[in-house]
Amino acid sequence: MLEVKQVASLIEQHILDAGFPIEPTGLYGPARYILNAGGKRIRPCLALMCANLFTDNPTPQIPVALAMEVFHNFTLVHDDIMDKAPVRRGLQTVHEKWNIHTGILSGDVMMIQSYKLLCQADAAYLVQLLNMFNTTAMQVCEGQQLDMDFETRVDVNLQEYINMITNKTSVLLGASMYCGAIAAGAGEIDANLLYKAGLELGVSFQIQDDVLDAYGDEIKFGKKPGGDIVQQKKTFLILKALEKASPPDKQTLIDVYHSKSTNEAEKITKMLQLFDKYQIKAEAELLMQTYYDSAIVALQKVSVPEANKRPLYELVTSLFGRSH
Amino acid sequence: MLEVKQVASLIEQHILDAGFPIEPTGLYGPARYILNAGGKRIRPCLALMCANLFTDNPTPQIPVALAMEVFHNFTLVHDDIMDKAPVRRGLQTVHEKWNIHTGILSGDVMMIQSYKLLCQADAAYLVQLLNMFNTTAMQVCEGQQLDMDFETRVDVNLQEYINMITNKTSVLLGASMYCGAIAAGAGEIDANLLYKAGLELGVSFQIQDDVLDAYGDEIKFGKKPGGDIVQQKKTFLILKALEKASPPDKQTLIDVYHSKSTNEAEKITKMLQLFDKYQIKAEAELLMQTYYDSAIVALQKVSVPEANKRPLYELVTSLFGRSH
Repeated sequence: MLEVKQVASLIEQHILDAGFPIEPTGLYGPARYILNAGGKRIRPCLALMCANLFTDNPTPQIPVALAMEVFHNFTLVHDDIMDKAPVRRGLQTVHEKWNIHTGILSGDVMMIQSYKLLCQADAAYLVQLLNMFNTTAMQVCEGQQLDMDFETRVDVNLQEYINMITNKTSVLLGASMYCGAIAAGAGEIDANLLYKAGLELGVSFQIQDDVLDAYGDEIKFGKKPGGDIVQQKKTFLILKALEKASPPDKQTLIDVYHSKSTNEAEKITKMLQLFDKYQIKAEAELLMQTYYDSAIVALQKVSVPEANKRPLYELVTSLFGRSH
Repeated sequence: MLEVKQVASLIEQHILDAGFPIEPTGLYGPARYILNAGGKRIRPCLALMCANLFTDNPTPQIPVALAMEVFHNFTLVHDDIMDKAPVRRGLQTVHEKWNIHTGILSGDVMMIQSYKLLCQADAAYLVQLLNMFNTTAMQVCEGQQLDMDFETRVDVNLQEYINMITNKTSVLLGASMYCGAIAAGAGEIDANLLYKAGLELGVSFQIQDDVLDAYGDEIKFGKKPGGDIVQQKKTFLILKALEKASPPDKQTLIDVYHSKSTNEAEKITKMLQLFDKYQIKAEAELLMQTYYDSAIVALQKVSVPEANKRPLYELVTSLFGRSH
């Protein structure tokens, strides 16, 4: 089995190019720029490690793994336009460095390139891969739409939130694991277990993100805690708090969350006090753990020797900074 | 063989839905809106008629035909954002009726849906179909990039222009004809002849568009002639005129074309006078005819009885408003 570092290194070697032509540079330059801006490469690493469960040499599955990363980066380019985000991975976003039109068109061509990479898989698996990829890609768009819809809604509930993050984030993790495995000859039962694991890891991961945004260490994560509160984003924390709070506390939550107060620190403190009153952080950690455990159970059911899954478990635990 | 009207009717019946889900309506509503706004449905009709050359019943190829129309409409939604176009087919463009973010995301999901439709083809032909579709989709993006690049360039030559319109417009016509045929079991030689015909028809068609924009009948085409001149667009006419004109006339062409004169009618008249002096319209018509004839020669080489091609010839001639 390849170690996590070996897989990551294989991905880094190949992502530098990802098969994009040179000309026109106005089109492909921005695609290379965002792909080379770094990132954790979680999706292609998961794909390649899942391939490695079913083949000793997963290098033929590298294009399928890259397809997942290129698709993910396409969504970042378009989402950054919609979110008006100026910075990504410490660099200017594509639409900031160039312009919105470049962001749209380079994003488009990245999506097409992700299909082109996927189609380099063994033709015998193409139908399964494309069915999964098409469905996933549509769900990711649906997730982004729901996320935008939530911005103007005040009645979003926790179930809707979990549904949104499942679509926006988790399905692509699941698809990466599924496609890596299928492209390496895995059966549907194993591939579906990996898909399920990816889905659950994704939800767990997003809830962890929500917790870290509110409670994370500024030095360790490079950003001030409370950003989501300041931006009035819907997160697990606020939605769970609204669900659990007494009517007067619920009203306070709503008022503080939507207040246009210029004192951000005070706003964050007030919100965290209410979260603490209802033990929201513990609730989040419990749900994270539930999804995480369920993912591990699914991984354990995959019909390859447990010893061969060691690097995959290592990657997964490292993503959550915890021991398995 | 199905008649042109029967093919058009089949397409209209199926385009109404094109397989989009209902929810979230903010995502799929705009996709349905643009698809139902009309249009000539040239691409899906060509696809289905090419399928019909190789099968008596081309209804199983309808999804492949729709894939071409959905992809075409995706490009319209994104291009309209980039071109800041307020109106399309007499209706507000998607980004005008909703907003740019909706235009981006609904366009994205339309592109994915075009792949989903294409993947409904017989699995035996999937590799050929996807190779053609991926290549074509990237070329269409490249064509749009070149078109945008041309806006800020003063040294575009005719060859570059033909290359741009080939990418932006013609390859999708070629791909529609190729994919329709392949999906119905055609061999590569016949499918490639149809691709070549589509490519050449596309170039001929675009040059016709350029001519009609300058010389067309206002009542017949529903728009004032000279729009391209007013908008300082690069067209066959201006590029050919620049190529043929004497140095002083060339300078006049450049000066008038880029003048910010508020008297549009005068500007159009001056340009047309210079076009006439160098017989640019005749040059355009000659090139149109050359491409058109070459397309017909390719069609004639397709190894099915000439009689079976009658409806296809009818469609092609009707698009050019001429007799074959």
